[in-house]
Amino acid sequence: MIYPQSLVRLIDELGRLPGVGPKSAQRLAFHLLRSDRAAVDRLAAALVDARARIASCAECGFFAEGEGGVCALCRDPRRDRGLMCVVEDPKDVAALEATHEYRGLYHVLGRALSPIDGVGPEALGLDRLARRLEGGEVREVILATDPDVEGEATAMFLSHWLSGRGVRVTRIARGLPMGGDLDYADALTLVRALEGRQEMREGGVSG
Amino acid sequence: MIYPQSLVRLIDELGRLPGVGPKSAQRLAFHLLRSDRAAVDRLAAALVDARARIASCAECGFFAEGEGGVCALCRDPRRDRGLMCVVEDPKDVAALEATHEYRGLYHVLGRALSPIDGVGPEALGLDRLARRLEGGEVREVILATDPDVEGEATAMFLSHWLSGRGVRVTRIARGLPMGGDLDYADALTLVRALEGRQEMREGGVSG
Repeated sequence: MIYPQSLVRLIDELGRLPGVGPKSAQRLAFHLLRSDRAAVDRLAAALVDARARIASCAECGFFAEGEGGVCALCRDPRRDRGLMCVVEDPKDVAALEATHEYRGLYHVLGRALSPIDGVGPEALGLDRLARRLEGGEVREVILATDPDVEGEATAMFLSHWLSGRGVRVTRIARGLPMGGDLDYADALTLVRALEGRQEMREGGVSG
Repeated sequence: MIYPQSLVRLIDELGRLPGVGPKSAQRLAFHLLRSDRAAVDRLAAALVDARARIASCAECGFFAEGEGGVCALCRDPRRDRGLMCVVEDPKDVAALEATHEYRGLYHVLGRALSPIDGVGPEALGLDRLARRLEGGEVREVILATDPDVEGEATAMFLSHWLSGRGVRVTRIARGLPMGGDLDYADALTLVRALEGRQEMREGGVSG
C-alpha cells in the first residue's frame, strides 16, 4: 500500500460507515487531512461523546441523554398524551416531527417482526408498551410501522395485541405519494390507494 | 430541537464533511449510536491519529508519516527516478497508482494556477520542484494536471518554466474516454481528440 499506515486505518474505519464506499472513504480521509486539526478533534470528540451519552428514552425508546433518561418529546407538557404513534425506528420519529403536524407521543419498537431473521413478538418489548397504556390516558394508538412486509405484519400483530385494551387502533394510510404519477405507482400501492379511498367533500376529503 | 444536545452536535459535525448533507449526517449519526462503542472509539482514534501523524512527503508532496518524512513511493528503490509525473493533488497520485502502469516518481503541486482565486506561480512551490531536478537524474517530466482551465494553464506555465532545464516535457493525452460514445463527447474533447490523433500501426498505435 502506498499510503502511510495511519491513513490506511482512517480510510478503513470511514469505509465501515453505511453508504460510504472505498472511494468516498478515501475522499473523506483526504478532506480531513487537509482540514484544520481542531476541526478533526471536534468531530472525534463529538463521536465519542454522543456514543457515550445517548441512550434510549426510558419512556418511548427515542434518543435521550443518559441511561434511564427521558427524551425531550416525552418531557414536553404540550404534547397530546392521548395519542401514541408506534414506529419501528428513531429515524421515523424524526421524519414525523419534521411534518410539524403530529403533536402526540411516540413509541419506538426498535424493530419490526421478521420471522425469517428470527425476530418474534418477544423482541418488540411489548411489556414497555403495555405499561405505558396502563394509565388509561392513551385514547388512540396509531400504527406507523413501514408499509413493507415486516411493517405490515407488525401492524397486524399489534392491532390484535391491542384489541381489548380500550384504545382506538389506527394505521397510517398507504396510497399514492404526493407529487407522483399514478402510472408510475406499483400495483400494490394502487391496490392500497383504492382500498383506502375516501369520500370527496366540497373543499376537501372526509376523515 | 427534539434531539439531545450531544446528538445535535454529532449531526452538525458530520454534516461538515464534504458530500454529507443534513439527511446523511443524521443517518450516519443514528448508525453510529447503534454501533458498538468500541467501533466508534476506533473511528475517533483513527481520525485524531491520522490528522496528527500524516504530513506532506518532503520530496514529492504526497502523504508521508511524520513532519519531514518521505513517502513510500519516494522510498521505493524499484521506481524509475528518470520519470516524474506532476499532478495537482494527492488524489491524482492514488488514481495513477491504481492503474499499476506508471513506475516513475511524482510531484504533487497541491494546487493549480487560478488567477481568479489569486493563486499565482509562487503558490506552486517551484523551488521544491527545481531542487528535485537539480541532480539531473530526471529525463522526462509528465504534466498530468487536470484537463480543465486551471490545469491546462498550469501545464502551459510549467512547460515554459521547464524549458531549458534539460528535461523532456510531455502532457498526458486529452481525448475520448474509453468506453464512451463519440456523439456524447463535448466539442472541446473532440477537438483535443482530433489534435492528439496518432498514426495507426498494425497491431497498435504509434507513440
